[in-house]
Amino acid sequence: MPAAYEGALQDLVDQFGELPGIGPKSAQRLAFHILSADAESVERLVEALRAVKSRVHFCVTCGNVAEEEQCAICRDPRRDRRVICVVEEPKDVVAIERTREYRGLYHVLGGAIDPINGVGPDDLRIRELFARVGDGSVEEVILATDPDVVGEATAAYLTRMLRTMDVPVSRLASGLPVGSDLEYADEVTLGRAFEGRRRIDEES
Amino acid sequence: MPAAYEGALQDLVDQFGELPGIGPKSAQRLAFHILSADAESVERLVEALRAVKSRVHFCVTCGNVAEEEQCAICRDPRRDRRVICVVEEPKDVVAIERTREYRGLYHVLGGAIDPINGVGPDDLRIRELFARVGDGSVEEVILATDPDVVGEATAAYLTRMLRTMDVPVSRLASGLPVGSDLEYADEVTLGRAFEGRRRIDEES
Repeated sequence: MPAAYEGALQDLVDQFGELPGIGPKSAQRLAFHILSADAESVERLVEALRAVKSRVHFCVTCGNVAEEEQCAICRDPRRDRRVICVVEEPKDVVAIERTREYRGLYHVLGGAIDPINGVGPDDLRIRELFARVGDGSVEEVILATDPDVVGEATAAYLTRMLRTMDVPVSRLASGLPVGSDLEYADEVTLGRAFEGRRRIDEES
Repeated sequence: MPAAYEGALQDLVDQFGELPGIGPKSAQRLAFHILSADAESVERLVEALRAVKSRVHFCVTCGNVAEEEQCAICRDPRRDRRVICVVEEPKDVVAIERTREYRGLYHVLGGAIDPINGVGPDDLRIRELFARVGDGSVEEVILATDPDVVGEATAAYLTRMLRTMDVPVSRLASGLPVGSDLEYADEVTLGRAFEGRRRIDEES
């Protein structure tokens, strides 16, 4: 679709069109929504955008999103510091928190090992995970990467590497449909998967 | 889905979720995109949002979007001022411009008469249309409201009202599938509809 509106409006259509999952028609609809929205609500959106860029970053300990140096979970004294649950993304933390089954800490990798898309172990927060496990206070590592190809490969890689560190490693199991996305699992399924986790460092 | 992230990020998820056509999962994906996007591109989006609010308004003559008092089409001396094409929304102007078949002016109503949703003739720029037609320089009014229920009803209403003003009134016809949305018609179909328009003020 060629540029069609006058300057500023077409500019906004283009900007919206660059966001993930927003096609040309959606971008146009959003731009017209902004045009007719009251100035206050647009200013709220602007402020929210800027606040995220200026205030939100990643927890120095676990890699989850945080507004302070550490995220709310790492700062919470009631969490069980002996267990670390390894996930791919911050939104997986949210999905697991919603089950209310898990009281330990997290470690957010920032993705999964995916050689086809050029993501190797060094591109993820794997070294930081080993550093945390290496200090001796961790009694279990739960691998909760997505049950898809790259998530399983990442779990297999981490299992192999953690075997040298003498810490029990488990993997979320029963209930999660294979090939799906952890983030979309319902609370009950995800809770069952926690209960039914099995050790995988003792196999083979 | 309950609030789940820390302050600013959840705030942005909520703000995105209020936009039309953006569900909770899309809002979350967009917020994470903003979080990891470079600050410059977010600032470009912010500036585009603000520019639309501060610079874009509606043409005093035709109701199309404009950055000056009049829109680019009304200001263009090459346009044929004897013909007015009446559409519902500014995006319909863009769709018709894309056909390159039409060289007259437009009149953007700002919607269609839709009593179920509480939109009556006084909520649209209908009085302004009559004022333009009433000055005597207009030789044809082309009704290009959407070929759906409310668009047809609006066209019927305008035909009835314009009959007193002694100006030929035509309606886009052949080619547009009934029940669809003008904005999505392809250029050829829309061009044919222009060619095949028929007078409707002489019927009944």
